[in-house]
Amino acid sequence: MSQLPVIGMMIGDPAGVGPEVCVRAAASDELSGLCRVVLIGSMAILERAAAACGMAPKLQQVADVTQMPDSGAIAVVDPGEFDASRCRFGEASAASGHAVLRWLRLSEQLGKKGQLQGLVLAPMESASMKATGLVLDMDDLQPAGTFMLRMTGSLRVVPLTEHVPLSRAIELVTPERVLHVIRLADSTLRNWGFAHPRIAVAGINPHAMYEEDQAKIAPAVAQARADGIDVHGPLVCDTVFRHCLEGRHDVVVTMFHDQGQIAVKTVGFEGACTVYIGLPYVMLNVPHGTAYDIAGKGIAQHQSLLSAVRTAALLATGQPLAA
Amino acid sequence: MSQLPVIGMMIGDPAGVGPEVCVRAAASDELSGLCRVVLIGSMAILERAAAACGMAPKLQQVADVTQMPDSGAIAVVDPGEFDASRCRFGEASAASGHAVLRWLRLSEQLGKKGQLQGLVLAPMESASMKATGLVLDMDDLQPAGTFMLRMTGSLRVVPLTEHVPLSRAIELVTPERVLHVIRLADSTLRNWGFAHPRIAVAGINPHAMYEEDQAKIAPAVAQARADGIDVHGPLVCDTVFRHCLEGRHDVVVTMFHDQGQIAVKTVGFEGACTVYIGLPYVMLNVPHGTAYDIAGKGIAQHQSLLSAVRTAALLATGQPLAA
Repeated sequence: MSQLPVIGMMIGDPAGVGPEVCVRAAASDELSGLCRVVLIGSMAILERAAAACGMAPKLQQVADVTQMPDSGAIAVVDPGEFDASRCRFGEASAASGHAVLRWLRLSEQLGKKGQLQGLVLAPMESASMKATGLVLDMDDLQPAGTFMLRMTGSLRVVPLTEHVPLSRAIELVTPERVLHVIRLADSTLRNWGFAHPRIAVAGINPHAMYEEDQAKIAPAVAQARADGIDVHGPLVCDTVFRHCLEGRHDVVVTMFHDQGQIAVKTVGFEGACTVYIGLPYVMLNVPHGTAYDIAGKGIAQHQSLLSAVRTAALLATGQPLAA
Repeated sequence: MSQLPVIGMMIGDPAGVGPEVCVRAAASDELSGLCRVVLIGSMAILERAAAACGMAPKLQQVADVTQMPDSGAIAVVDPGEFDASRCRFGEASAASGHAVLRWLRLSEQLGKKGQLQGLVLAPMESASMKATGLVLDMDDLQPAGTFMLRMTGSLRVVPLTEHVPLSRAIELVTPERVLHVIRLADSTLRNWGFAHPRIAVAGINPHAMYEEDQAKIAPAVAQARADGIDVHGPLVCDTVFRHCLEGRHDVVVTMFHDQGQIAVKTVGFEGACTVYIGLPYVMLNVPHGTAYDIAGKGIAQHQSLLSAVRTAALLATGQPLAA
């Protein structure tokens, strides 16, 4: 049992469906033998969520992740300080936002200490987070220095930038940044069990034949190749994603958000997920929202969360994912 | 017979496989009842191509497209001035480039006079065209004022710009240009048999939430809607193509070349084709090259060309294409 990776599940906005899907996933037997899960959030909220689902799992507060719960119990790390009695289903509030910020910080600390090998974030609510006055934009919650790698089937993409205007994204294509993300993609895929990651770098301009392609991207690729990384580019960005889907590349480093997102969302496979790379643990968001309209009704589906936890456990232990 | 649309097939580079696939397509019975075809190019080159294919079709030079050929004969419009005896298979030359320029000009004149309802261009050779000294870039051959609409399955996309650096493409996103392409997409789809074209306009920035989206694209969409066009936008560009594939939109106006090309090429359906819109006739390229390595061997496949001619005939007569 101690050999299994520990995956933290931050329960998300307490007024949304996050606590319900976390309880359902933790109580299911579908993760046994794959990982040990620890819920991070309010014990009282989780008990309420379990009741809403008509369940009575044994929830056990642990001092920290190293403490094993009793047999059959679900471990919960709860830093306290949240008044669950004032939290109503489907209502955003600053109190909920502050609680989530506290749980996020705690989760990240546990990850950095090596107590978690993976972290899955249940859905947060933008209105609650902004009501704290501490979060101006949900993008601010992305851990510093991380990049967001999206996966769907055999297509994996990681952009240099996220939500910035396209004109600014072009400015941010620098040899240093391109090289950094190539190296990060290479080391990440090695951690995930790829013996020899094959990395493609997309050009930024049509047919990869203009100034930035040659002056900014090409030198970074050349340097990475000199360092022994199996990387090619700048490649024509309208065909590189099809080639990745067909197995010619393991990951595509893209120059801006929509290059890869258009490909990922247009192929439209089920089960796309996003992994934050650049951390000592595997961190994923669940790809759905707080669903305030059905929160507390016990009907939210936990399959997406289970899938995210399974992905985190497999990646954290270097086991290839089925495409 | 006179009710059928007339589709011109410009035979392409005389040293490539274009003449062979044109002869094969014109001689096949797969277009009967759908259109009347006229070959535009050198009679001597076409006779050589037929011989290379082991065929002996009746090729008949006509003075212009209005002259019907004899029953069973294939009409050829040949402006002369090309010395076929000096043209060797698989060799680029300025003479070939000049001939193609002449055939292109003639084809466009016939189209503008209303003698052709469709025009399909067999593959041209960049080296031959550039050897003329008149063509610096193959992009120069795009008829002035046209835009390139790509189709694959139910996905149709048309960008504001083609091969320009991304930073320049951003500058070219103006309300006037966006409105122009919306109107052109609307009138084109009406000509193609769509009673009420549903047009989507992609945003240019992530989540369509920055300056250009609101200041440049939104006003153009508002104006088009005020004019009675069924258009929505700016829409988030990473999901709009999936929605088009699923039938929510009939066409997506995109802000730069790769937005739509990534979607078209990543879905990877067979039979994607490009139509130049903004002309009084339907104009398509065949989506393959001159294949110099097999030119003159009689083995080039003519299915792509047949498909392009069929598409031109259906669009020209306002018949919906099967998705």
